[in-house]
Amino acid sequence: MSDLHNQLDAAAQSHGPAAQDIERLVEESDRRGLLALVETMESIDLATKVDELSDEYLRSLLDLLPSPTIALLAKNADEPLRLRIATALDDQLLLVVLALMQNDDVVDVLGALSPARASSLLAHMREADRVVLTSLLQYPDETAGSIMTTSFIALREDRTVADCLAIIQAKAAKIEQIQTLYVLDMKGRLAGYLDLRKILSSPRNALVSRIMETRMVSIDPYADQEEAADLVARYNLNALPVVSSGQLLGVITVDDIIDVIIDEYDEDMLRLAGANEEETLDSPLLDTVRMRLPWLLVNLVTAFLASFVVKLFEGTIEQVVALSAIMTIVSGMGGNAGSQTMAIVVRHLSRDNVSVRDARRSLGKEIAAGIINGAANGLVTGIVVAIMYHNAFLPVIVLIAMMGNMVIAGTFGFLVPVALKACHQDPAVSSSIFVTTATDVLGFFIFLGMAQLFLPLLR
Amino acid sequence: MSDLHNQLDAAAQSHGPAAQDIERLVEESDRRGLLALVETMESIDLATKVDELSDEYLRSLLDLLPSPTIALLAKNADEPLRLRIATALDDQLLLVVLALMQNDDVVDVLGALSPARASSLLAHMREADRVVLTSLLQYPDETAGSIMTTSFIALREDRTVADCLAIIQAKAAKIEQIQTLYVLDMKGRLAGYLDLRKILSSPRNALVSRIMETRMVSIDPYADQEEAADLVARYNLNALPVVSSGQLLGVITVDDIIDVIIDEYDEDMLRLAGANEEETLDSPLLDTVRMRLPWLLVNLVTAFLASFVVKLFEGTIEQVVALSAIMTIVSGMGGNAGSQTMAIVVRHLSRDNVSVRDARRSLGKEIAAGIINGAANGLVTGIVVAIMYHNAFLPVIVLIAMMGNMVIAGTFGFLVPVALKACHQDPAVSSSIFVTTATDVLGFFIFLGMAQLFLPLLR
Repeated sequence: MSDLHNQLDAAAQSHGPAAQDIERLVEESDRRGLLALVETMESIDLATKVDELSDEYLRSLLDLLPSPTIALLAKNADEPLRLRIATALDDQLLLVVLALMQNDDVVDVLGALSPARASSLLAHMREADRVVLTSLLQYPDETAGSIMTTSFIALREDRTVADCLAIIQAKAAKIEQIQTLYVLDMKGRLAGYLDLRKILSSPRNALVSRIMETRMVSIDPYADQEEAADLVARYNLNALPVVSSGQLLGVITVDDIIDVIIDEYDEDMLRLAGANEEETLDSPLLDTVRMRLPWLLVNLVTAFLASFVVKLFEGTIEQVVALSAIMTIVSGMGGNAGSQTMAIVVRHLSRDNVSVRDARRSLGKEIAAGIINGAANGLVTGIVVAIMYHNAFLPVIVLIAMMGNMVIAGTFGFLVPVALKACHQDPAVSSSIFVTTATDVLGFFIFLGMAQLFLPLLR
Repeated sequence: MSDLHNQLDAAAQSHGPAAQDIERLVEESDRRGLLALVETMESIDLATKVDELSDEYLRSLLDLLPSPTIALLAKNADEPLRLRIATALDDQLLLVVLALMQNDDVVDVLGALSPARASSLLAHMREADRVVLTSLLQYPDETAGSIMTTSFIALREDRTVADCLAIIQAKAAKIEQIQTLYVLDMKGRLAGYLDLRKILSSPRNALVSRIMETRMVSIDPYADQEEAADLVARYNLNALPVVSSGQLLGVITVDDIIDVIIDEYDEDMLRLAGANEEETLDSPLLDTVRMRLPWLLVNLVTAFLASFVVKLFEGTIEQVVALSAIMTIVSGMGGNAGSQTMAIVVRHLSRDNVSVRDARRSLGKEIAAGIINGAANGLVTGIVVAIMYHNAFLPVIVLIAMMGNMVIAGTFGFLVPVALKACHQDPAVSSSIFVTTATDVLGFFIFLGMAQLFLPLLR
């Protein structure tokens, strides 16, 4: 088993032998060899390989593959590959492939196409599919509605366990998620759900309404997909029903939730660094510049703020030039301490709120930690400064400024994310710039301000 | 439904009325009222409320609750609450509660206790449970073995679909995950698996060995839990079998994988900021200091490096003191640009490797982006500097230094994570300090070095 696992792991690497194997088989138009190879691969691994093929090879490959394999490939492809596959297929074949896919995946494919081609494809679909897909396509990206599937099992509350089993048996092969069955009341509104384990362990003649769970979690189709992920993670759900005015519109499955969690975290990590989630290593140069430059210019404004503070004290620096080398230590260390506090607070806020009582206690602790950490770092810095600059007062100023700036770091590191959360902003993303602006500006101000006050002692 | 969802959402808030309601019912020893209230709550929400109770209230509450509710509470509690619950219960009652829990959750509870109490509890358990739990306890934290459950359904390959259904019916109520059944060969080794949908849609007399899937993904019990999460996310698995020398030891379920993904990302976010994943808002002051100070001292060393560079040019700064205000803009903006590149590269590395060909092209693009973004930021900075300092040469030096430092930012922002990944270090965590050290040190060096070269023009 461990070997098999290693094989899969190796196959998942970008530059294993399989991509070239596929190219060779495509060149030789060896359909049987190709199918035999594809048979040994998980579809996601196949998608990773296919991603490396040129458009020409991709087209020849798709000519050789049966439509169900193309459907699996399109399901597992990322957006750029999905678009390449759809572009390589003519409308007729693409319609066959789409008919083999779950409708949430079809929505992803249609969403990758030009609106003109998407509507032309929709026009050629069966009436029933077209209605469902059109309604799914109306939900904006990153909403619960945009990631739900409409293939789920629902039955009326006057049915029995035997009915459930018959429906499951009939639909099992085509439905992604059969662990949860939904129960509708006589007006067609969602009334409860049944876990498959409950069905399997109940007598065949039991009424669904008697054994169903009525306490359940659901989500509105226009809610943010991140909210859906939070609910599934918190309540350990197998599937999350999407409901509007009592009507069950669809179901979000766990595999899509895992994708959402990973995407949202990636997005946070990128935004935290001022990068855009649309950018990849392959983005063209000008897109890269266009996506990064605005954030750099925002930061330039805050850099100027800090620079103006330094300029205020140019007269002082001119007389004790050592200040210019030491001031960057004080401001930089404040930034580091602020990041630590911010990270702890942001994690807490992602799970829970902060009460006024908690806030008072935590803020007190942050200030105390700032004093202690500032004293420790200030002492070390002070000793080095004393040795390097042969002055007895400069180290004292360094010590006090370091303590002051770390108290500022703790205070802003705590208050900024709490305030952003209170204003319904994402604290993970925007806290950083405010906190480092505070530690830079105030760090320079405290250190240089004190130096100016005690200037006669420093010269 | 949307109301119900809102109710749950409100209940999930820390300071809704429910915590006080529980306190009141506990004070009045109103067992019926308490059970009625608990009945309306999801266990995770109950755990959130209980977490706010004092030890005294917690003890009285546990006296009033039936053991199955305590078991659900212990399952959904975080580690500190789990320890408080276990401490509040005597051995006899705790053994009853543990007997009602899945063994992966029992392992979590035992892991939270002192080794002495854990062994004394183990000694009082049934032989069969003790053997399983002892073997589970041997897997270190954060390994696949530490998060697997041993309650799964496995059957021999010579059985039929009818046998499967009988086993499922018998075990469904007690087993968390019934969507996947595992098939063992005649020597007891894992040979394949069956999706419940396949079972439900196959004839009752079909042999398991004929309809099972033999291509499957598994993991070693000592592998990192993050690897388990990657496999489940990549292959959209319902459950991941844990296998050693062909033996099926346990199964990791999707809900545990979601917890792993969230924990690992939180860990990355915290470590990126130099914070420790063990720290919470409630950590005592001295723990907070102990966890943060080492990272601050590491950063202090890099701050000194940058400071030494500035000190090298003290003579130059003394003559053109404006340099001290402008140099922080150049170094800081390099740090920001480096973070952007790093974030894009780290995300790419979390999914894929970088080939030598990719690396050459991407590095070229980063350098070009550094030149363009450096030119844009340098131009803006140069104009402001020209207005403020009335010197025609200073802006030119600012422009060139900004371009140089952004090229350095792009180069290090790209190469550092790639190099760390190649050395099997986590690029998400440790890249930042190297990149900002480079942009600080080299940023000061380029700017002040050029200023020194052209000093006569600046005075």
